[in-house]
Amino acid sequence: MPETVRSAAARTTGTRYGNRPTMKDVAARAGVGLKTVSRVVNGEPGVSPDTERRVQESITALGFRRNDSARILRKGRTASIGLVLEDLADPFYAPLSRAVEEVARAHGALLINGSSAEDPGREQELVLALCARRVDGLVIVPASDDHRYLEPEIAAGVATVFVDRPPGRIEADQVLVDSFAGARDGVAHLIAHGHRRIGFIGDLPRIHTAHERIRGYEAAMAGARLPVHESWLAPGATDPARVRADAERMLDGPEPVTAVFAGNNRVTVTLVRVLAERRRPVALVGFDDFELADMLSPPVTVVAQDPAQLGRTAADLLFRRLEGAHDPPRLTTHPTRLIARGSGELPPHS
Amino acid sequence: MPETVRSAAARTTGTRYGNRPTMKDVAARAGVGLKTVSRVVNGEPGVSPDTERRVQESITALGFRRNDSARILRKGRTASIGLVLEDLADPFYAPLSRAVEEVARAHGALLINGSSAEDPGREQELVLALCARRVDGLVIVPASDDHRYLEPEIAAGVATVFVDRPPGRIEADQVLVDSFAGARDGVAHLIAHGHRRIGFIGDLPRIHTAHERIRGYEAAMAGARLPVHESWLAPGATDPARVRADAERMLDGPEPVTAVFAGNNRVTVTLVRVLAERRRPVALVGFDDFELADMLSPPVTVVAQDPAQLGRTAADLLFRRLEGAHDPPRLTTHPTRLIARGSGELPPHS
Repeated sequence: MPETVRSAAARTTGTRYGNRPTMKDVAARAGVGLKTVSRVVNGEPGVSPDTERRVQESITALGFRRNDSARILRKGRTASIGLVLEDLADPFYAPLSRAVEEVARAHGALLINGSSAEDPGREQELVLALCARRVDGLVIVPASDDHRYLEPEIAAGVATVFVDRPPGRIEADQVLVDSFAGARDGVAHLIAHGHRRIGFIGDLPRIHTAHERIRGYEAAMAGARLPVHESWLAPGATDPARVRADAERMLDGPEPVTAVFAGNNRVTVTLVRVLAERRRPVALVGFDDFELADMLSPPVTVVAQDPAQLGRTAADLLFRRLEGAHDPPRLTTHPTRLIARGSGELPPHS
Repeated sequence: MPETVRSAAARTTGTRYGNRPTMKDVAARAGVGLKTVSRVVNGEPGVSPDTERRVQESITALGFRRNDSARILRKGRTASIGLVLEDLADPFYAPLSRAVEEVARAHGALLINGSSAEDPGREQELVLALCARRVDGLVIVPASDDHRYLEPEIAAGVATVFVDRPPGRIEADQVLVDSFAGARDGVAHLIAHGHRRIGFIGDLPRIHTAHERIRGYEAAMAGARLPVHESWLAPGATDPARVRADAERMLDGPEPVTAVFAGNNRVTVTLVRVLAERRRPVALVGFDDFELADMLSPPVTVVAQDPAQLGRTAADLLFRRLEGAHDPPRLTTHPTRLIARGSGELPPHS
């Protein structure tokens, strides 16, 4: 590496790490004793969930890092974490990325992102390239279902948290949303408004969240003893042409639906256009909220996640690991909430 | 670096670079002679713009890279390029990011992104960190107005292309949009529909594109000999609260406007909400198209850019430099186009 580059990085790092917060600062801010902070940082038992959360928030807010952690404070080098998404252009990930970035910044770390474009091979290539470039930790939205390739990196000290979908074949911290319950509740909402002929258009079933949402749809239909016609269940790629074709098949076929549940925001946005062209009103509930959903005619009923909260939780878990927590890997599941705005409450029209 | 990491990376690289395209392949695909391809790759004169573009497209499509370029084909290491944006969560950058990623993938390179969050210090820190991690080239949407800090990196062989805004104090390839003309034409469109009292709400004037759009607004008003009242020109941060406050001031003040020009998509989306709450129809033209703009009531008139084309052009220029082109830095300016959908053609109401 050219000498000028290293010097520049060292100068930048030196001025910013001048006044590091200590565990005493964290204790004072959280209103707890020093021993309590130590327990949280080390992942030891004996701390209530409320207290632990308060301490964790103080750690994040102050940007506290253990001085003796060889993993982060290597002399003269900025800490950095990697975020691996599956699609750079999906608006769902924007609040998640920004939340992870804010937590990174509060810890004085840089955030580097990459995208797997839903390709497991690309995900592995990118993750290993980030590790080879000395990221201290990774937040991963996995495209792969087998993460054993990461075991050497994790053994070497690279902390890893999975978000939105679980890791495959390894144990690691993960932050998920209850996709099954969210989809089930969204379809149940349509059933409660009188619909019996309901379609589902979602993503490729090999994707964990898509598979869980199919299960939720099937559970809601079975729970109300409603049969599912062959054309009503349409997973696949979420490009507009495919979604449109399957929507038209279930709307115009021999067993037309009176309502559709969309498995994610990309599908919902295409369906908004397809349904607006039709004379017959068709009810719509979509998984994931999206910008301007409330300004459409009719405003769109959604099963909303909180991607910023997902990102924040994942990043907090990551820095907890980087600060030395050794407790077993955690699974955190966030709930969804149904926002009824109009499109999901239209009665059946045939 | 642990031995297992290096081996994994080398294994992955080895299998993918098995059958490299040659200059002959490029010549055949583009339908030109080998010498012509050589001129394009070396940045030599004597090639028409049309022919050069054809050759460049073939290079990108085939993923051709010069074998003797020490910059890219370092043994056992994947080529990577960095993309530095100013805001991860702004939907405008999504198509740009994806386009850069597609060009990178066609060249067998990984894409790593970061965000400056509009902070010049953060931009510098991130750029230097990416250089320290051996990116081969950078596409930068600058937040800074002084890029002399990059001179050592450029001298060391890191190619750099600036997109959306120009670099400061250095010469480098840049791909811009004609923000001045786009804003001027958008405001002229409102004037042509009868408006004389027109407001402008845009981003911070220190940002190049925001400054150019203010100039465009002023030029259109001056060209029609229309005075600009103090409350009508409102640049600043684009958070919804600030935009709303300034919009209400120009709509409810002593000199109320009958139309507003929004300086970018974030401002437009807030204004759509503010204007929907009002009884009096107010015309709206926004800079930048956005998803579902045509589905709103009224559908939104915009001055559209093509961020995917911006990204593609910038990435093509970057790989051209990485392949050894030595001609002087280029400025490419893309035009905008006005899409009249309804909101910009409302007549004045007072």
